Amino acid sequence: MKEIRMEHGAGGEKMRELLNLILNYFVRSAEVRSTEEEKERSEKSEAGVKVGDKDGMRSAVEVSLEDMDDAAVVEGVVFTTDSYTVKPLFFPGGDIGSLAIAGTVNDISVMGASPLCISVAFVIEEGFPMRDFERILESMRKTCEEAGVEIVTGDTKVVEKGAVDRMIVTTSAVGKRSEALKRNFDEVRKFREVRREWLLDSNIREGDAIIVSGYIGDHGVALLAAREGISFHADVKSDVAPLNKMIEGALEEGGIVAMKDPTRGGLSNALNEFAAKSGVGIIIEEEKIPVRASVRNACEMLGIDPLEIGNEGKVVLAVVKEKAEAVLDALKQDKRGRDAEIIGYATKDVKGVVMKTCVGSHRIVEPPVGDPVPRIC
Amino acid sequence: MKEIRMEHGAGGEKMRELLNLILNYFVRSAEVRSTEEEKERSEKSEAGVKVGDKDGMRSAVEVSLEDMDDAAVVEGVVFTTDSYTVKPLFFPGGDIGSLAIAGTVNDISVMGASPLCISVAFVIEEGFPMRDFERILESMRKTCEEAGVEIVTGDTKVVEKGAVDRMIVTTSAVGKRSEALKRNFDEVRKFREVRREWLLDSNIREGDAIIVSGYIGDHGVALLAAREGISFHADVKSDVAPLNKMIEGALEEGGIVAMKDPTRGGLSNALNEFAAKSGVGIIIEEEKIPVRASVRNACEMLGIDPLEIGNEGKVVLAVVKEKAEAVLDALKQDKRGRDAEIIGYATKDVKGVVMKTCVGSHRIVEPPVGDPVPRIC
Repeated sequence: MKEIRMEHGAGGEKMRELLNLILNYFVRSAEVRSTEEEKERSEKSEAGVKVGDKDGMRSAVEVSLEDMDDAAVVEGVVFTTDSYTVKPLFFPGGDIGSLAIAGTVNDISVMGASPLCISVAFVIEEGFPMRDFERILESMRKTCEEAGVEIVTGDTKVVEKGAVDRMIVTTSAVGKRSEALKRNFDEVRKFREVRREWLLDSNIREGDAIIVSGYIGDHGVALLAAREGISFHADVKSDVAPLNKMIEGALEEGGIVAMKDPTRGGLSNALNEFAAKSGVGIIIEEEKIPVRASVRNACEMLGIDPLEIGNEGKVVLAVVKEKAEAVLDALKQDKRGRDAEIIGYATKDVKGVVMKTCVGSHRIVEPPVGDPVPRIC
Repeated sequence: MKEIRMEHGAGGEKMRELLNLILNYFVRSAEVRSTEEEKERSEKSEAGVKVGDKDGMRSAVEVSLEDMDDAAVVEGVVFTTDSYTVKPLFFPGGDIGSLAIAGTVNDISVMGASPLCISVAFVIEEGFPMRDFERILESMRKTCEEAGVEIVTGDTKVVEKGAVDRMIVTTSAVGKRSEALKRNFDEVRKFREVRREWLLDSNIREGDAIIVSGYIGDHGVALLAAREGISFHADVKSDVAPLNKMIEGALEEGGIVAMKDPTRGGLSNALNEFAAKSGVGIIIEEEKIPVRASVRNACEMLGIDPLEIGNEGKVVLAVVKEKAEAVLDALKQDKRGRDAEIIGYATKDVKGVVMKTCVGSHRIVEPPVGDPVPRIC
């Protein structure tokens, strides 16, 4: 690696290489934790805290950078950040403002937490039209209202022409453990053990059902259409939406062990992260995966895989199998989850992610290497 | 305002206009709080919480967006964010990495809080040299180590050539009330009342002493020199540094009511914010303000005011007058504060900020309108 390339930001294998490099600097020991250490840590975590050894400062990091999950957890505070570089800023179904708020709310929510407040940092190119800025502010306000969350702090930088492509928005959020999370894990424990009481990618065990909360690929295809001026007969809109209320409903039902929003790298990347971090295989059925005909057609035309395209209003869940139907029903109660489907299950029979195709064959779903649609978020 | 201009990000009057526009969207009522409301809020805040009315969700925002202070406080969690667009990325005394970590640590610390953890979001231009990236990571790691704080979560986006000028870093941090803060305010209360127990810009009253923790102008001048290839005989280095340990030492002494890091807009902007938000005048003495001869010469040569240049390793404090000397001594105990000086006091005799010049005349220190040195942070 002599320089940073587009694939380093694409949510796939190359990105993992770059993140490992970053971890080398930011984590005292970047070695992958042995099962032993993991177990010890998890026991401490169940006892409430992991006590750091640094400078006499007690740091209780329950979910750290090394977990490479959607958010960190420190002393009970759930914390996440994302920069949004989407192009164009306005697209069918949303804009950079709704995207930034919803994305950050969702990163908190998929951990099993409730968003408490949000920060917004703008970097704006000189000459940016005030009317567009106000449209973005209004869209952020509305998304906050839907999610029931408040923007409490921020920063605004203006840079000269050419120093940024119009605008970058970085949102961070703080959340706290959702009240429903304990009940959710009580429900899990009726059927099997679970070590860490957050919705972690590493929590999945053989037999767990895999659920996706609705149609995939909408966001990426809508972006691509808006960017390239392509029309795909049927109009496709981005699915960008805050999902905290839908997720809280599903947690009330209980039995969920892991959750992830399949953004960069799409469903394919999310499932591969589940499989790798949990040390299980995942089998999914192509015919169960909700993909709109218009999205499927667009993908075929462009030669891209709908499984690798980013989504901004969907989650993938792993649920103990005894609760799979009940959680599915709970998701369907919410308008954001009404097209949810059980698409597969975790197993030791395969390694990685395998898809039974519509024609009956099996295909390995590799983690994506590059990004079929860059700058979607 | 038809479009966003450079002055909108310059930390002065024009920036306040833009921030007011943002507040209009993000705060339910953007009207300036009347003294009555302020008082009521402060009583509630002293009782522990301010209860929101939104969607049945209890939100306890102690320090909000409307306070336009260095960080927000929600349910005891102190929260701040900043995007760094500095140019060049490497400069004498630091780089974008140390700048981002130190800046965010300082924004937490000047509220009277201890930083708990940090998030880092990178936006990187394709083709960025890996060697430079690693230099920045190492510099972040070192600054974290000095501050005793951990990076726990992050995001990395890579964009195509021309979409960003090399790199933007956005850091956010979460902090908690410093243990010394209560003792600090107990000390304040020996001499006078104070309403809100955070180091707020609005806490200053007549008679309070104004202290600056060291030489001002170093960062801006170092940046300018690096950018323009100008040499000012004596080398000037950026003062970028995490100040949490120095600040904790000063809080142990007690008697501090307000604190601010004079970054964009410099000392001039910080003092004008103090005066405006606290509703007092401030008189400072030019000869007391620590400015290096090399910085003064550079500023004269370039026709810029050292009071308006950004600093990245300094704080301005307001302290009850009975404790001013003791706090000054506490600051001087730390290498980051050894050149601290009492530069003036708050008074009702003047409006805004007035400086007694070295030649004995008086000069009004206006809040800066534009930025003499853009992209310093």
